Amino acid sequence: MRTFKFILEYDGTDFNGWQVQTNAKRTVQGEFEAVLLKIFKRRVTAVGSGRTDSGVHARGQVAHIRVETDMPPDEIMRACNYNLPRDIVVCAVSVASSKFHAQLSARRKTYSYVILNRDFSSALERRTSYFVPRKISVSRMRAAAKFLVGRKDFCSFANVDPYHRGGAVRTISRLDIKKRNGRITITVEANGFLYKMVRNIVGTLLEVGTGRFKPEAVRGMLLKKDRRAAGLAAPAHGLCLEHVIYK
Amino acid sequence: MRTFKFILEYDGTDFNGWQVQTNAKRTVQGEFEAVLLKIFKRRVTAVGSGRTDSGVHARGQVAHIRVETDMPPDEIMRACNYNLPRDIVVCAVSVASSKFHAQLSARRKTYSYVILNRDFSSALERRTSYFVPRKISVSRMRAAAKFLVGRKDFCSFANVDPYHRGGAVRTISRLDIKKRNGRITITVEANGFLYKMVRNIVGTLLEVGTGRFKPEAVRGMLLKKDRRAAGLAAPAHGLCLEHVIYK
Repeated sequence: MRTFKFILEYDGTDFNGWQVQTNAKRTVQGEFEAVLLKIFKRRVTAVGSGRTDSGVHARGQVAHIRVETDMPPDEIMRACNYNLPRDIVVCAVSVASSKFHAQLSARRKTYSYVILNRDFSSALERRTSYFVPRKISVSRMRAAAKFLVGRKDFCSFANVDPYHRGGAVRTISRLDIKKRNGRITITVEANGFLYKMVRNIVGTLLEVGTGRFKPEAVRGMLLKKDRRAAGLAAPAHGLCLEHVIYK
Repeated sequence: MRTFKFILEYDGTDFNGWQVQTNAKRTVQGEFEAVLLKIFKRRVTAVGSGRTDSGVHARGQVAHIRVETDMPPDEIMRACNYNLPRDIVVCAVSVASSKFHAQLSARRKTYSYVILNRDFSSALERRTSYFVPRKISVSRMRAAAKFLVGRKDFCSFANVDPYHRGGAVRTISRLDIKKRNGRITITVEANGFLYKMVRNIVGTLLEVGTGRFKPEAVRGMLLKKDRRAAGLAAPAHGLCLEHVIYK
């Protein structure tokens, strides 16, 4: 058995997220595993670094497979890209240690979120940005973001009971907010993310930027450890998994 | 009667180009005029700065209409964007002189063309870039581009008889080629473009970059005044009309 590490880019628009579902809906994992079956002539499971939700994109999703094969990585990459639908692309394939696990070995992940903040939407970026024509104060968003950086309990920013698996304490090592040409890009790096955590953070920061919450209110939200304390989730299509860092 | 100038962005993927066709296919002009009919309760013709082909995008297409109305421009813009499909967006509306004509008053136009030049394609940019995994020499492309800048007869780079309307002499004022992160972006500015001229230029430069033609061969192509002398047209989906400059 050999272990291969894949880096995948996908346009999440027409997928019901990463993970295979019992209801036969189109998923990235499902399409990818169908291609692996074709290449290796046997059922191969692709383990992702994490699920991405329906509509969320990825430039650097990581997945691993374990399979009995002599095929070199570059040939696997070519065979995948030849067979995959156009909205999934394999960017890299490498041989990994048998201990490598795309989810469990991950140390940090980076997501980006794009808000298109101008008077008119975009035809060319409509799939990859969230259009908000309201006035948004980026400096207020930045002031609020400061409270979220560091090791915190993000229970208020998680959509389901996070205590299922080791609690809601995560460390955000970076939370940048940049504005350029009417686009606000929020970049979040953490050692792990709870369910819908980035979208809940972005939605809350947006509500700070538009005036519903004061920047300082975010501190109180964290302390409450209650999802209802924070703001609404931002929609999926502005979100992109940029990369996953391993040891 | 008042004249309004519109700036339009569109994703050309699902359109059969700008111009209304008799065969009822989906066109940008057709969709736009359907919305204008709804807003003004009468048939209004939208005159574009030029046709864009099937699959070609625009960030700055310009069109004008002449209509009897008291509606202010910002209200027209809002009404348009409320009613237009998501792959067309009105970026600006202004009142123009009754002499303004989107096509005849145009002084210069700028097009961009994006070639994705790396080993694997892109899921997120598949609609707006032409994927070429072959080795391309940008310096050879630049050397060839020099012969195309200035006032020339571009007959060899036009797909139909250009002598229909005033010959094939045009002035290219700028032809830049940049490479960054595996993307080669070609920007062409001219006082006018012949049918498929940008795509024929890009296709020819690509064939210089991949070694089929020498850079100097472009000089000979121009002199031959024969479409067969130059290279193949690059596909539509890498092309975008960036902006149109008026006096």
